[in-house]
Amino acid sequence: MATDVLDVIRTKRDGGRLSDEQVRFFVEGYTAGTIADEQAAALCMAILLRDMARDELAYWTQAMIDSGERLDLSSVGRPTVDKHSTGGVGDKVSLPLAPLVAACGAAVPQLSGRGLGHTGGTLDKLEAIPGWQATLPTERIIAQLRDVGVVICAASETICPADRKLYQLRDVTATVEAIPLIASSIMSKKIAEGTKALVLDVKVGSGAFLPEIDRARRLAETMVGLGAAEGVRTAALITDMETPLGRACGNALEVAEAVEVLRGGGPPDVVELTVALAREMLGLAGLDPGPGGDPAAALADGRAHRMWDAMIRAQGGDPDAALPAAAMHHEFRAPARGYLRRLDARAVGVAVWRLGAGRSRKEDAVSPTAGAVCVRKPGEAVEAGDPVLVLHYDDPTRLDGALAALDGAVEVGPEPPEPRPLIIDRIA
Amino acid sequence: MATDVLDVIRTKRDGGRLSDEQVRFFVEGYTAGTIADEQAAALCMAILLRDMARDELAYWTQAMIDSGERLDLSSVGRPTVDKHSTGGVGDKVSLPLAPLVAACGAAVPQLSGRGLGHTGGTLDKLEAIPGWQATLPTERIIAQLRDVGVVICAASETICPADRKLYQLRDVTATVEAIPLIASSIMSKKIAEGTKALVLDVKVGSGAFLPEIDRARRLAETMVGLGAAEGVRTAALITDMETPLGRACGNALEVAEAVEVLRGGGPPDVVELTVALAREMLGLAGLDPGPGGDPAAALADGRAHRMWDAMIRAQGGDPDAALPAAAMHHEFRAPARGYLRRLDARAVGVAVWRLGAGRSRKEDAVSPTAGAVCVRKPGEAVEAGDPVLVLHYDDPTRLDGALAALDGAVEVGPEPPEPRPLIIDRIA
Repeated sequence: MATDVLDVIRTKRDGGRLSDEQVRFFVEGYTAGTIADEQAAALCMAILLRDMARDELAYWTQAMIDSGERLDLSSVGRPTVDKHSTGGVGDKVSLPLAPLVAACGAAVPQLSGRGLGHTGGTLDKLEAIPGWQATLPTERIIAQLRDVGVVICAASETICPADRKLYQLRDVTATVEAIPLIASSIMSKKIAEGTKALVLDVKVGSGAFLPEIDRARRLAETMVGLGAAEGVRTAALITDMETPLGRACGNALEVAEAVEVLRGGGPPDVVELTVALAREMLGLAGLDPGPGGDPAAALADGRAHRMWDAMIRAQGGDPDAALPAAAMHHEFRAPARGYLRRLDARAVGVAVWRLGAGRSRKEDAVSPTAGAVCVRKPGEAVEAGDPVLVLHYDDPTRLDGALAALDGAVEVGPEPPEPRPLIIDRIA
Repeated sequence: MATDVLDVIRTKRDGGRLSDEQVRFFVEGYTAGTIADEQAAALCMAILLRDMARDELAYWTQAMIDSGERLDLSSVGRPTVDKHSTGGVGDKVSLPLAPLVAACGAAVPQLSGRGLGHTGGTLDKLEAIPGWQATLPTERIIAQLRDVGVVICAASETICPADRKLYQLRDVTATVEAIPLIASSIMSKKIAEGTKALVLDVKVGSGAFLPEIDRARRLAETMVGLGAAEGVRTAALITDMETPLGRACGNALEVAEAVEVLRGGGPPDVVELTVALAREMLGLAGLDPGPGGDPAAALADGRAHRMWDAMIRAQGGDPDAALPAAAMHHEFRAPARGYLRRLDARAVGVAVWRLGAGRSRKEDAVSPTAGAVCVRKPGEAVEAGDPVLVLHYDDPTRLDGALAALDGAVEVGPEPPEPRPLIIDRIA
């Protein structure tokens, strides 16, 4: 008897393992439109509640990859390595990291999506740079990788069309949180972009997609396993997202902070994570840094910054142009004297999103200027009335919503909090 | 914060109880079309896998009833009582039962749906009678109940529109089998039709919707509880559906067998179940049969048959007209001498359905003549080559499919099988 879609849904509903034939039938049929959204939604909910076996998920991921084009980067002539973050507040690490790793000898093909929700998108950030273009044809992507060594751009529509449809469906059916579906969505796109090695930054904490460490670890392990099954060397760092990363949140503000890091400065947490991820990427790419080759040195001596300039120029941007700035500012002040004990990542992310830095729907435009600067970070001393956060905005009607999001987000106490490690675990 | 559909889905997905507000928001929104099919599908799958609490389901059922019209039968002037069967092969019991109970003094408002799948529909059977009309306006339904005492007709589109949409959705998303959704679908329609008492015939066995006794019992208990919560006196019999009920399966063939029962004859299992259900119904309606009032007597003395004639005539049918008959017959024979040990209900149901007695899609027409007669029933002696089943059909291209369904359906052995009770349990 031929596979039919009800058999597929029933199998997963009843806790069974989907056969390879069933997986392919579903992924191909849904991509082609012969399987309806309501049938895919029922299956996604069954997967969320019943889970998938390791080899079942590997085949599912393969079918997602096969729904579109898989880039061939063999002509690039250097080892390829990419990084993916599950998303955090103030997480601008891709911006200094990609040119840094390229400056150390790898080719970095970073095909990205747009941000949705309270965590920003890398493309939205780079678009704050005058002239910079996110969309490139495939041959330009490959040429830029060969000639410059690094490209950050939009993934083409021909990569993983199955994921494009499924992602939108999951968003409206409360099935985003299924670990097999998250893992296959991320890994299918990264594998299809053609990289041979991949480092994952799996965020955990209030500002992360997965607040609990157990689920973050399971997601990391699942993705590392999927990478291995597809011949992509993959490792993951699990990193803290209880408070924003660095001081800047918002598109142009984060670009400016990334440039500080590329100039050898910047907030210590951003530098620490950028260097740690760069070392992982170079290790997976098989590039022995050698004397003076450590990524920290490439930040200090200007090589990473020169690579950034070349990357921005190759996509039409002017790295020397002034970034746009917001017309209005509002200081959010400490309620008492003491130490900043908590500055909640999710609350800051939602506030910045409400100021206009993010979008509610895919088709919305974002404000390049809206954002927040964390003048104080947890552990730092404050006087009553000192600014903790400065909100940047151009649309004053958005301020009240942002302030409402910050209600309860700041805690000051007589003692500094226990220091939290930024890098919590490594999975490979 | 206002309820939104993702909150509703997430609550059930995570194993929680939907609030009254969430239930009403969902049922109203889905009926109105502001909640999409894929969102309803995700919720149905979550309900199937997470279940519903008793009071949560009662409120859900109430919201389904409130999505449409609820008939007011108070002008009928007699106690109202109805019966619903979860569907079986050869289950023509509604045909003799409704007029029988009306002949004993109750008013029987039986609003039915069409058959889908291998169990036939009561309306399809009655439509084999020349002239008989299934569709009546509400005022005609009430007038016929008052003047004749019994009506079997199609439920109007204004009754439970939420169920109409949900039922079709469940059919294509493998969520038909969720007990809370089955129970609320049946009970919302029966409560909305206005009956004050209801007897459920919950079938169990190969030919039933639920093959396992545990699930059948849970469904029965759930429905009896929902009836009580809505002030409808409700009881359930759990009855055997391992083998077809009676000897006739198929629309006109079943009408003919029902008329035999109404004339005081007919197969003993059909008579046993008809009388048992009639006693339950009269009991719930508060009608003490009194001397000579037992339903068996009303079958024997012609009162039930006269009521049948009146019911058929009131809807334009001619109870004396010849029923249509198939042009072709095929005898399915016993492979050996011995006792018929098994005649599988599902296989016979599928065979009859493939001969044309049922439909695959809602909009298909059915054949009045296609069907099968069980010449032997389990426990009866056979010689090798004796006919066990006679298939009736007009379209010879359908025979091979029907015979394929019967593969393995008949077992003959040297000893008769253990007798099986027809009525397995009573739940009230």
